[in-house]
Amino acid sequence: MAIMSLEETVLDRISPDPKHRRFVNGVVSDLVQKVEGDIRERGLDLEVRLVGSVAKDTYLRNPDVDLFIMFPTATSRKDLENVGLAIGRSVLGGEERYAEHPYIHGEFGGLEVDLVPCYRIASPLGLMSAVDRTPFHTEYVKNHVSEKQKAEIRLLKQFTKGIGVYGAEAKTQGFSGYLIELLILRYGDFRTVLKEASRWRYGQTLHLAEHSKDKIDSPLIFYDPVDPKRNVSSALSLDSFSLFVHACGEYLKKEDIRFFFPKAGKALDMRTIKNELRSRGTKVIVVEFRRPKIIDDDLYPQIRKTLEGLKALLEANDFVVIDKTFLVGDKVRFVLELQSDVLPKCRRHQGPPVWIDNAEEFLAKWKGKGIRRPFIDKGRWIVIAERECTRATDMIRGQVGSMALGSDFRGKKGFRVIEHEVVLTRGYKETLTGLLEKRKPWER
Amino acid sequence: MAIMSLEETVLDRISPDPKHRRFVNGVVSDLVQKVEGDIRERGLDLEVRLVGSVAKDTYLRNPDVDLFIMFPTATSRKDLENVGLAIGRSVLGGEERYAEHPYIHGEFGGLEVDLVPCYRIASPLGLMSAVDRTPFHTEYVKNHVSEKQKAEIRLLKQFTKGIGVYGAEAKTQGFSGYLIELLILRYGDFRTVLKEASRWRYGQTLHLAEHSKDKIDSPLIFYDPVDPKRNVSSALSLDSFSLFVHACGEYLKKEDIRFFFPKAGKALDMRTIKNELRSRGTKVIVVEFRRPKIIDDDLYPQIRKTLEGLKALLEANDFVVIDKTFLVGDKVRFVLELQSDVLPKCRRHQGPPVWIDNAEEFLAKWKGKGIRRPFIDKGRWIVIAERECTRATDMIRGQVGSMALGSDFRGKKGFRVIEHEVVLTRGYKETLTGLLEKRKPWER
Repeated sequence: MAIMSLEETVLDRISPDPKHRRFVNGVVSDLVQKVEGDIRERGLDLEVRLVGSVAKDTYLRNPDVDLFIMFPTATSRKDLENVGLAIGRSVLGGEERYAEHPYIHGEFGGLEVDLVPCYRIASPLGLMSAVDRTPFHTEYVKNHVSEKQKAEIRLLKQFTKGIGVYGAEAKTQGFSGYLIELLILRYGDFRTVLKEASRWRYGQTLHLAEHSKDKIDSPLIFYDPVDPKRNVSSALSLDSFSLFVHACGEYLKKEDIRFFFPKAGKALDMRTIKNELRSRGTKVIVVEFRRPKIIDDDLYPQIRKTLEGLKALLEANDFVVIDKTFLVGDKVRFVLELQSDVLPKCRRHQGPPVWIDNAEEFLAKWKGKGIRRPFIDKGRWIVIAERECTRATDMIRGQVGSMALGSDFRGKKGFRVIEHEVVLTRGYKETLTGLLEKRKPWER
Repeated sequence: MAIMSLEETVLDRISPDPKHRRFVNGVVSDLVQKVEGDIRERGLDLEVRLVGSVAKDTYLRNPDVDLFIMFPTATSRKDLENVGLAIGRSVLGGEERYAEHPYIHGEFGGLEVDLVPCYRIASPLGLMSAVDRTPFHTEYVKNHVSEKQKAEIRLLKQFTKGIGVYGAEAKTQGFSGYLIELLILRYGDFRTVLKEASRWRYGQTLHLAEHSKDKIDSPLIFYDPVDPKRNVSSALSLDSFSLFVHACGEYLKKEDIRFFFPKAGKALDMRTIKNELRSRGTKVIVVEFRRPKIIDDDLYPQIRKTLEGLKALLEANDFVVIDKTFLVGDKVRFVLELQSDVLPKCRRHQGPPVWIDNAEEFLAKWKGKGIRRPFIDKGRWIVIAERECTRATDMIRGQVGSMALGSDFRGKKGFRVIEHEVVLTRGYKETLTGLLEKRKPWER
């Protein structure tokens, strides 16, 4: 028996075998029949189109099935939504899920299914709804990918999954399946993608066809071969891009199964956490909200905005933020590690240059207010002013009303600010692990 | 008896009365005779020229007498120095004083005298030594100033003296007598100078004659009427400029004798200082050197450089400097008020972007060293690193050898760093008053 390479071993684990293939094909065929039957019963004549990884045969085991119901372009948006969702509900039960475009997500025959209404447009340039391009993406890949490359795509998908950057949704801000397929088409195979990507820099630009010359500011720009103005990797965050670039280099230096199948992260024990924070000398505060009842694609952008808002508020008040993270559960927890959570009562406040007209106003405003009088330093007025809040936690409590928060955090549902000492003594082990554990997925 | 205006009262106090005039003229005439006699005895034929405020009749009571000994341009620099200083020593005793140009300073007949050798050049553009322009300045003012304006000059001199910005020497970085004379020539009288100056902005440019078009970056640019490329106010610091602009406005709003004759500053009492610092919550540390044995014109630039160097060192190590000052006595004391004089053991250290070639080096350098592993934030590598020094005082003690200090502070003569607690308990009352007292001279 020949010894399998690491990548062969991985492929063996992730590729659908004949049995699994039969299972998926069976489910899809049943599903299509059922949807077509439902359409006929409504007296309608709509094409049902299998798209996505199952259609392209680039799926990993237990794939999501993406089934599109294609409406004539003359259909009103309202009819498309109503009829589309009605068919979905009748076939899947399931739940309506959408940030921008309506669809039904449910379970069918043991697989997760997305049933999505779209317009049957003549060209991807004539987009009428956000998802109308998808059938063209499916066609493009089907027409260009070789049998051998399907395995390369599966490897790259599992690699991005393993390192935590698979999926373009807001939670991950990583690589979409389509982007991964295009990378294999562009570079030929898994290893070449890794070799090239390990040398990418911010702004790396790729294409497979003629494309627009408009400048796009993004970590990675891959012009969509079916829509020359669109960047396929527009959802990829700077951190996902960076982690991928780094991981590619690391894997090439020393390949390891953990890049594909990382071990589950374990919480640090509380003793380790306490010792480490004591020796760091920093203070960790936690800002907690009840989790808003919205879908992930709406939630995560708001979480990131709120975390940045908290950091900006702290820094504007002279607190030094050493590190930060968030954790989503029943509650959304924002974790901020500070150089110090208390500042002295006074601060240096810089006013205008002495020779500017509003210097008078500045002096009038501070008359009798600062600690001692304003003085001149390097041509500007300076006051030593009293701080209203010397504790970071009090400051956040006082300012949460006027902060730049995600809209669903503005209502302050379940809002609490937790002091360092309390964070250390109550059950915040996972929260603190999320902050302190810096091993990459493949290093665990 | 008519009631005198404030400015008449001031003039009455500062202008030489006939008796004082006779005294000054007598001293000058004796001095010139003695110098001319000394020159004759050496078998030389050199012109002796009275310059400066006594020559221009713009002096205040008890003026310095500036007497120049004018050498032919064929004289070697060495002869000029040797002969010039020899005459000075023989007439005045006195001491050699120079940063750049040699001269003898001494006392004669009850007045301070500077006896200065220079070249008798044909035009100020043919400058051979730094002071050759002075006789031309004296001539220019004598030829342009009216009798009435001499009083206006005296008022403006006393005003700048009162607010602490009179004199172009390194200690003060203020307005030279010549600059004050030119300001009166430019604007006509004392009140108009104040009115205009209260509206000056950084870069205010003035002239009395044709001048160079070269850009000069300076708070105030006054082109020298006898040398069109030279800025007469090049020694004026941003802070002296700013204080003058502010004081002009304040005086015009509410004239007060204290602008001309400020009360002596009193030290704050130690109880006030302690209470104030306690309520501020800041920490004051003092860095002390024995005073280097050099003249003020060399000392003060080095002091300012050293103070900036201390601030930069502290800030580079994450200490927040709230305020700073220095005090010169037997010792030179640098006083730094810090938000905190202790920092936690760890700090956030930002590395290169992940995609830059030297990211590898960065990771190699920090391998096993930081607290936990490097992580990616906004595309850059970050480590939480251990601080070598958590106390500001220890840090300064450790770094003083490698700091950007003035050259005469580098030897570390009498170098000491004094902790906050010690500063508060030992005799640092004057030092702390220098830091905390923010009243302007006229507000005392």
